[in-house]
Amino acid sequence: MKIGIMGATGAVGRQMITCLEEQQIPVEELRLFASARSAGMKLPFAGGEVTVEVLDEARFAGLDVMFGAVSNALAKQYAPALQAAGVLFIDNSSAFRLEKEVPLVVPEINGEDAKHNNGIIANPNCSTIIAMMAVAPIHRVSPIKRRVAATYQAVSGAGNGGITELAQEVEQLRQGQPVSPSVFPAQIAYNCIPFIGSLKENGYTTEEMKMENEGRKILHAPELKVSCTCVRVPVYRSHSVSVSLECERPVGLDEAEAALSSYPGVVYMKEDYPMPLMTSDQDLVYAGRLRRDGVFDGGLALWCCGDQIRKGAAANAVGILQYLIQNA
Amino acid sequence: MKIGIMGATGAVGRQMITCLEEQQIPVEELRLFASARSAGMKLPFAGGEVTVEVLDEARFAGLDVMFGAVSNALAKQYAPALQAAGVLFIDNSSAFRLEKEVPLVVPEINGEDAKHNNGIIANPNCSTIIAMMAVAPIHRVSPIKRRVAATYQAVSGAGNGGITELAQEVEQLRQGQPVSPSVFPAQIAYNCIPFIGSLKENGYTTEEMKMENEGRKILHAPELKVSCTCVRVPVYRSHSVSVSLECERPVGLDEAEAALSSYPGVVYMKEDYPMPLMTSDQDLVYAGRLRRDGVFDGGLALWCCGDQIRKGAAANAVGILQYLIQNA
Repeated sequence: MKIGIMGATGAVGRQMITCLEEQQIPVEELRLFASARSAGMKLPFAGGEVTVEVLDEARFAGLDVMFGAVSNALAKQYAPALQAAGVLFIDNSSAFRLEKEVPLVVPEINGEDAKHNNGIIANPNCSTIIAMMAVAPIHRVSPIKRRVAATYQAVSGAGNGGITELAQEVEQLRQGQPVSPSVFPAQIAYNCIPFIGSLKENGYTTEEMKMENEGRKILHAPELKVSCTCVRVPVYRSHSVSVSLECERPVGLDEAEAALSSYPGVVYMKEDYPMPLMTSDQDLVYAGRLRRDGVFDGGLALWCCGDQIRKGAAANAVGILQYLIQNA
Repeated sequence: MKIGIMGATGAVGRQMITCLEEQQIPVEELRLFASARSAGMKLPFAGGEVTVEVLDEARFAGLDVMFGAVSNALAKQYAPALQAAGVLFIDNSSAFRLEKEVPLVVPEINGEDAKHNNGIIANPNCSTIIAMMAVAPIHRVSPIKRRVAATYQAVSGAGNGGITELAQEVEQLRQGQPVSPSVFPAQIAYNCIPFIGSLKENGYTTEEMKMENEGRKILHAPELKVSCTCVRVPVYRSHSVSVSLECERPVGLDEAEAALSSYPGVVYMKEDYPMPLMTSDQDLVYAGRLRRDGVFDGGLALWCCGDQIRKGAAANAVGILQYLIQNA
């Protein structure tokens, strides 16, 4: 397969290269695209190196699949050329996620949806993927009616710039210098910022609306009621989510444990509990702190963590392609 | 008034000294008690210095009020001697909080309860005080039936040791050294720990059960359903809480805004949003991100922050005494 990555030099793009190797995708040729500033850079792949090309639709011919790790604007700009060239576009931006004819896929949950595409498959929001991986096993036992979630999101969600900003601020504070946030709206070191994205008219942020709308689409649960608060915390890579659930019928703790324990890609922790540090740099989503919810009769509460760059983005996108190859 | 502080050299004890000055409590004599290790230390008060005495019930005679900033075990050990000596005990431990004859008081919410005491008044859990300050104004408009909360708790909740451990870990990581957590069950730097206190049989932690049970007692709402997840985050002083609420009748956003804006001790932020850094080192609780909840019909979601050592502990305890003086 001839595979391209748009935005190959960013945090997610670089991780996609690694995931192609790890998931043993049969790559005949890998082509990496980025802005003119990064063109010429060499990135390692499969024992060799690939030189980054400038992103230009004239160069798309011959590709089978293009992964997108770019902004919404760039995804929209290049999607028509990819479709015209017959290149399957697996896009990590939010540009197409809610479009009716575009499948929004977490392979373990709704991989089948990926087959019904018109050339574009959307990779969900990072917090959404991680929360859905922990929630889908229970949804399969009894459909979820209501879900309350609060997130603890890593700085990697804002890309390499977010990671650098946290490290810089910690160092500036150590030296008694003032900090000057540019990626985040406020100092993130030793702080929590309850605001990710921009504000919608209903008082929710765009990030919170993604959690709400994308979850419904992935679970095929258009009636699902969701309340969500998305918060940035001074953690580098893994997102965490606290979840309360009400299902159509009460789900026993044993049933829920069995469902979580047997679900592919999920690690259920019964005695110990997941934390961002222990769940970083791997593709698995960890769930724990399972207990009866105090508010929903017969409901459940749980806590989950997963690597934002891997399962929250790159590994899931590459996993979509792997699903299509294995289920062709 | 002759006032004592047990545990005067800890984070909360030291803050109590400052709060006595700030709240202009008429202190005729201040006596500071701590372990033998700290005895002899001099702490500043009212332009002078007070020498720390070793904690010993033989020294309680003549005191009017004793503030407790010690462990449950020490609070229980010394309570009988304080009662016998006729000293009002305002205790920050959780030893007596749920005892029927002990009022559990946030002065702005249920100050009146403080009057009906048998010599002991309990100061609530820190996260509980901060969440209740943001929730009580709405509860007054229409009683709250259900509340889902997720906390983002500062390391100061574990006292000076917690503060030191975060700073040490950041420095150890900078130098490439291994970290060795002792106050917290895992590395807190760049991590979240969804476990505070110890585990109860129902799968909740002791900290989560405090949020649940103490909230009911403070609001006089024994039927209130609560679901809570308590999480430690790498923040120094202010706790944050994400809250979803269902009230007996739907409360309008305008009504809720008016209630929050006019409540003593609460700052309501409409445009901007509260964060731990901006709310530290002051007694006010900040509420913001007010919006319709997505799960509870006619419900509300909000976010609040407050300084854990001040309003979450010392300032509230001293505020109880101030209430009693002003409402004698």
